Amino acid sequence: MIKDLIIKNNKKIVMLVADGLGGIPYIDDKTELEYAKKENIDNLAKISMLGLIEPVSPGISPGSGPAHLSLFGYNPLENEIKRGVLEALGIGLELKDGDIAIRGNFATIKDNKIIDRRAGRINTEESHKLIDYLSENIKKIEDVEIIWGKGVEHRFVIVLRGENLGDNLNDTDPQKEGLEPLPLIANDEYSKKTAKILNKLIEISKELLKDQEKANYILLRGISKKPNIETFYERYKMKALALANYPMYKGLCKLIGMETVELGMDFDALIDFYLKNYENYDFIYIHYKWTDKKGEDGDFYGKVKEIEKLDSYIPKILQKEPDVFVFTGDHSTPSKLKAHSWHPVPILIYSKEGCFYDKNAKFTERDCLRGYLGIRKSYEVFQIILALAGKLEKYGA
Amino acid sequence: MIKDLIIKNNKKIVMLVADGLGGIPYIDDKTELEYAKKENIDNLAKISMLGLIEPVSPGISPGSGPAHLSLFGYNPLENEIKRGVLEALGIGLELKDGDIAIRGNFATIKDNKIIDRRAGRINTEESHKLIDYLSENIKKIEDVEIIWGKGVEHRFVIVLRGENLGDNLNDTDPQKEGLEPLPLIANDEYSKKTAKILNKLIEISKELLKDQEKANYILLRGISKKPNIETFYERYKMKALALANYPMYKGLCKLIGMETVELGMDFDALIDFYLKNYENYDFIYIHYKWTDKKGEDGDFYGKVKEIEKLDSYIPKILQKEPDVFVFTGDHSTPSKLKAHSWHPVPILIYSKEGCFYDKNAKFTERDCLRGYLGIRKSYEVFQIILALAGKLEKYGA
Repeated sequence: MIKDLIIKNNKKIVMLVADGLGGIPYIDDKTELEYAKKENIDNLAKISMLGLIEPVSPGISPGSGPAHLSLFGYNPLENEIKRGVLEALGIGLELKDGDIAIRGNFATIKDNKIIDRRAGRINTEESHKLIDYLSENIKKIEDVEIIWGKGVEHRFVIVLRGENLGDNLNDTDPQKEGLEPLPLIANDEYSKKTAKILNKLIEISKELLKDQEKANYILLRGISKKPNIETFYERYKMKALALANYPMYKGLCKLIGMETVELGMDFDALIDFYLKNYENYDFIYIHYKWTDKKGEDGDFYGKVKEIEKLDSYIPKILQKEPDVFVFTGDHSTPSKLKAHSWHPVPILIYSKEGCFYDKNAKFTERDCLRGYLGIRKSYEVFQIILALAGKLEKYGA
Repeated sequence: MIKDLIIKNNKKIVMLVADGLGGIPYIDDKTELEYAKKENIDNLAKISMLGLIEPVSPGISPGSGPAHLSLFGYNPLENEIKRGVLEALGIGLELKDGDIAIRGNFATIKDNKIIDRRAGRINTEESHKLIDYLSENIKKIEDVEIIWGKGVEHRFVIVLRGENLGDNLNDTDPQKEGLEPLPLIANDEYSKKTAKILNKLIEISKELLKDQEKANYILLRGISKKPNIETFYERYKMKALALANYPMYKGLCKLIGMETVELGMDFDALIDFYLKNYENYDFIYIHYKWTDKKGEDGDFYGKVKEIEKLDSYIPKILQKEPDVFVFTGDHSTPSKLKAHSWHPVPILIYSKEGCFYDKNAKFTERDCLRGYLGIRKSYEVFQIILALAGKLEKYGA
């Protein structure tokens, strides 16, 4: 329905996403947002709409992939991105239409029984050397190109690039030690070629690794094809720029056709690029990773500091006077829990027109709970963002 | 599901709808409802349930048609009313099953190119004379009755009444000047007769209008059949009366089988009729148009006054002691925005039994946001209204 109502106009939307922003009461019974001194955000909150967003469904802790899709208005349950593809995006591998991505593990095998599913968690350096060795020796099987991607410790990624490759196959990892690897079986006609290629790949790599003490076998999981997701432009008729330091976020944004830039790990570089290129886009997404990192470390004060640091960037971002400015997180990462959680995420939407504000509000979980937007799905709130930017026609007469 | 749970009883529901009631902060950071002195409504709010309703979907600004369907418990996305039908209802034309309604524009054509899609926005009087002339000369084409309806300026409505008429046809209006009118093509077998009749109609009217300076052609849009919507009685086993001054609202209510009365443009006449005929109905809907009009004019104080005026009718309406009384709007029309908007609409539901009230509440957007009903779809809240009137059986054992 939304697609039929879209109006192309020159209004601009900027969305700043602090990863893992939401929290729960911890030090002094406060959340990180309640504890932080963040004058710019709190001043903005007084003239903005506040609310709480749920990325997927109540009680569900989302990964960053589905959480971000939801922020961009895609129902993550209808737009699934499978494990292999997410892993490939996560290490910065680019995927083309038709590509198959697979998560691999180095494992230890003896008498055809898996005795260690993670090859003793071999160190990353050693693992990368093995990937160099394998990728030099296995570049193509039949007409299919084999692309190897390095991961952390025993983890790596394989991408198959070729014609007619299906992804309806099981994992070879039996998820338990002492068992044989599972035979790779195509569950449909279309996936038979993929099975054949991968069985060969397993065989050849086994031969190449046979003298390794620990990492003498590879297990394959999450065999999945690049999904066919409608692009952001197809849906909303907005030219979009994604500014992120970490590869997974850029990869995800590329999947839906946003433009991305390689600016390294410096957040200032993102903001500089934003300031210089603002005029060229209708929608700009800016990602701040460090709030999530501190949350996962259980570092309450660290997360508070990251929020305060991010607050100092707000005036620079608002210099451009976007018609709609959104500040939120993709999901919550309460430092008390040291992990992604299901807790709804505070959101602030400022717009020049159409705001229902509360002059007494601050940008905290508690004030957002009482905010005008209520508790909603992230992807539904995107409709409200579109409405505020005048990008939705009236429905019916 | 609801239909299976319906209990027919003698409880009565009265629903007063102030068109475009909802607002956003504007003068003194207040909404129209916050600014208005409305003692009766505010007193009632202290013993009623409050909430906010969304007619269609978050961020969607609805037309009055879908917004009203939603108020009556119909999901507007599952019960679409197309353009031509709404236009016909809007000017008070009655539609029968199988009728095709079409919105027409007078246009200026030269050498078969449209040089003005609105015939220089000819004045309404002149337009009405032309419709008289056309309707005298075109009453029937083959076995199909042609009914002409007068509109404002260049606009008019045509209704086709006959057998086997489909509505799967394009508009003839190319939406741009300098182009030829689009040929009318049936997109399915069933719409071929409609195409044939309308092509003849265009030809004959062109001949009849050939000496007109401006309005020498007719363009057709929104060709649509009267939809097949379940009646209010079929769904809820309630005999319903619709009291409205404006034709569109009456037309819409007729579509779902409510009784309507012709009482002119005087709101007092509606209330008098209500008081005299209250006993004969299970459900009475009363429509107040002027809040929306002032909102669309951007007249904050005007809208405030209309709310205060409507407040003065409350005691009269409550004289009859309905079992459930609902006060709400169909959609928001903030005077700050001068248009229908997506903002959720405040709703008050008073019932003799089963209310969860807050003695400190007033009937404002802010208090409704904190109200017991939360933010919900209009059509879902109708289920709660039915429940309060004891019209829903327990679900399951």
